Amino acid sequence: MKFSTLCVKNRIYLDHNATSPIATTVSDQVAEWVQAWGNPGSIHQSGRGPKALLRTAREQVADMIGAHPLEIVFTSGGSEANNFAIKGVFDSFHNSTFLKDEFRNQYLFTSVEHPSVVKTAEYLKSRGAEIAIIPVSRDGQIDLEHYRRLLSNKTAMVSVMLANNETGNIFPIQKMADIAHEFGALFHADCVQGLGKIPINIRKLDVDLASFSGHKFYALRGSGFLYMKRGVRIESFIHGGGQERHRRGGTENVLAIASLGAMCAFKNDVYENGQKMKALRDSMEDRICRELSGVSITGCGSLRVPNTSSLVIPGVDGETLLMNLDMRGYSVSTGAACSSGSPEPSPVLLGMGLSREEAQSSLRLGIGWSTSADELSKFIDVLKEVVDHLRTFSGELRENQIYNDQSDFGKKS
Amino acid sequence: MKFSTLCVKNRIYLDHNATSPIATTVSDQVAEWVQAWGNPGSIHQSGRGPKALLRTAREQVADMIGAHPLEIVFTSGGSEANNFAIKGVFDSFHNSTFLKDEFRNQYLFTSVEHPSVVKTAEYLKSRGAEIAIIPVSRDGQIDLEHYRRLLSNKTAMVSVMLANNETGNIFPIQKMADIAHEFGALFHADCVQGLGKIPINIRKLDVDLASFSGHKFYALRGSGFLYMKRGVRIESFIHGGGQERHRRGGTENVLAIASLGAMCAFKNDVYENGQKMKALRDSMEDRICRELSGVSITGCGSLRVPNTSSLVIPGVDGETLLMNLDMRGYSVSTGAACSSGSPEPSPVLLGMGLSREEAQSSLRLGIGWSTSADELSKFIDVLKEVVDHLRTFSGELRENQIYNDQSDFGKKS
Repeated sequence: MKFSTLCVKNRIYLDHNATSPIATTVSDQVAEWVQAWGNPGSIHQSGRGPKALLRTAREQVADMIGAHPLEIVFTSGGSEANNFAIKGVFDSFHNSTFLKDEFRNQYLFTSVEHPSVVKTAEYLKSRGAEIAIIPVSRDGQIDLEHYRRLLSNKTAMVSVMLANNETGNIFPIQKMADIAHEFGALFHADCVQGLGKIPINIRKLDVDLASFSGHKFYALRGSGFLYMKRGVRIESFIHGGGQERHRRGGTENVLAIASLGAMCAFKNDVYENGQKMKALRDSMEDRICRELSGVSITGCGSLRVPNTSSLVIPGVDGETLLMNLDMRGYSVSTGAACSSGSPEPSPVLLGMGLSREEAQSSLRLGIGWSTSADELSKFIDVLKEVVDHLRTFSGELRENQIYNDQSDFGKKS
Repeated sequence: MKFSTLCVKNRIYLDHNATSPIATTVSDQVAEWVQAWGNPGSIHQSGRGPKALLRTAREQVADMIGAHPLEIVFTSGGSEANNFAIKGVFDSFHNSTFLKDEFRNQYLFTSVEHPSVVKTAEYLKSRGAEIAIIPVSRDGQIDLEHYRRLLSNKTAMVSVMLANNETGNIFPIQKMADIAHEFGALFHADCVQGLGKIPINIRKLDVDLASFSGHKFYALRGSGFLYMKRGVRIESFIHGGGQERHRRGGTENVLAIASLGAMCAFKNDVYENGQKMKALRDSMEDRICRELSGVSITGCGSLRVPNTSSLVIPGVDGETLLMNLDMRGYSVSTGAACSSGSPEPSPVLLGMGLSREEAQSSLRLGIGWSTSADELSKFIDVLKEVVDHLRTFSGELRENQIYNDQSDFGKKS
């Protein structure tokens, strides 16, 4: 499979966790899908083409994760799916609609969730929910005994991401879901960063709800879905018409959904591409750690998705490094694109116990199915050059600073 | 401007209120927009193209309705925008976040709102809100004195659609907003069915919040927006990253948003196309009423958008009529696509005081910018033929029914 290249011309894209290029299998079919513009809710002929596309995509998506098509509720993306799952459970308990147990009002999240989960948790708190945070260690581990002690028969829901968007750490969802179920709590997994990077079998994970997004997996923006295990019924999030069996209102975005379905048809390529990315990522990390002094890899003590690398490069400001690499034709990031522009260091890295200085010296690399060894080799050459330059520069700056501080000595009073 | 025709080949599409074909100005640019797949939140080069598209679209959309670009919050569509506006106000009052007045807990809606408003109102009720319904008469009128009496200093919000999706009736938003403001209540207008049909000046309407959708206006599915008047701050709906100035989380659907922006650049064509559609619609109604006995037009006693016609055709079942017209190559509907498949008669028509029988004999016609007089002339010929056939058939059926009833007489005991 090939990938869109217009924006990648003369550019090496290593930010696949922010978004991914569009696969040619998608871009080649866009014009055809655009023609199926009818409303799938219409019962006349114009609705039939889009309805068929929707049905096929639902089957492809369900097959990708080992679910039943009726367990798939399409959304506009991962953020909507996360909001839907968490607020849906809260509303159902709170208003005693679909879930009846007025004493369950505790919600558990890890310290490294995506903003769409973190901000939703803050919203629940404003509505009276009790929020508890599961700590994640510097090497990406969750202490399951500690986690168990946080749970009680007051716990309504646990929401944990399958893979972290910045470090790539994979969390033990299956074990955590089992423990949550012992206490009668529901379990939601944010699987956005897992899709297309590792094979996902939703039955094995044994979660009640799970969120997914298309645009991290070479599909068009505007598609995502919430897996709702058969028998789990929660309050709708977007209330409206009878679409998605009355679970999500709004005319379906057939174009984006068809593109996600088309990508999910590559289910059998996920493992192999993962192995390929892992080999590239690991040898990239090896070389960087060998050839650049003091670099450490956050979360490398635990299981990670095969494409992600979160580096701490001491003596270098991450944002300055990003901009220098950008000028040389490399797209990388310091953390989640959702938080970019914010002067604050990454909440995920702070949540794993890194210092502010370490977090601010961090660089996130996310490779993709199309990344080559040659691209990474060129990248490392340039990275070394830029880091050496910045370190020299910041060394000189520090010396000047000391000089200025000395020359200023005694002037203040 | 031309429109996509693949699905309309050998077909006359008269269901523009469900969704509209894609304009060629959109389909011609899709391939280019798809290439701008970068995340607009990324600060490296790959984010810059999409960010620029987003900025341009925001300006085009704002200009279309006479708003400031910062008053535009992009959503996945009209249903999300309606949910956002109404739940956002409710949450802000309820949790005393952005709106502080704990006694304001009454929410007013008309009897003919879209399902995304009706179901959201039901949801508010489950959370303790007081809901009041503003009646709409058979000819599409709202009694403003009655409306005023429903309001009090307990009213938090009034939500009324600019134009009805089934009858096309335009409601006096400006007057109603002024009255709501006298009582210190916020005013939201669902403008989804207005965009592209009538010129909209949001300052003149003087509303606080207004919802819009792209796919009713020849743009791609997956784009819509909520107008938020400067100074109006409500709780977010999709919580998440810093997108849309922290008002709506989730990576922006640049492709769909760019298509909506491109359509909004045709602002100056709205009035003229409206006049053209009105002439076509009016002469179509004239001929239908002249040549088909007993037909009445719902809501024709009031102002309507120029493209919509809601007919009651006595002696004919709307759904049967729809299917017969479909087989002959005409796409029409009996009501909202959101409710299609439901055996219940249209809640909008019942909400205007039509009997169940009248509602079930209704046909909705929605013409578009590309509809021609020739198409409508052919349509009316076929409509007459089909209605005559169905009336004869149902007449025979009734006679047989009487015969069967008579022959069954005495058998039941």
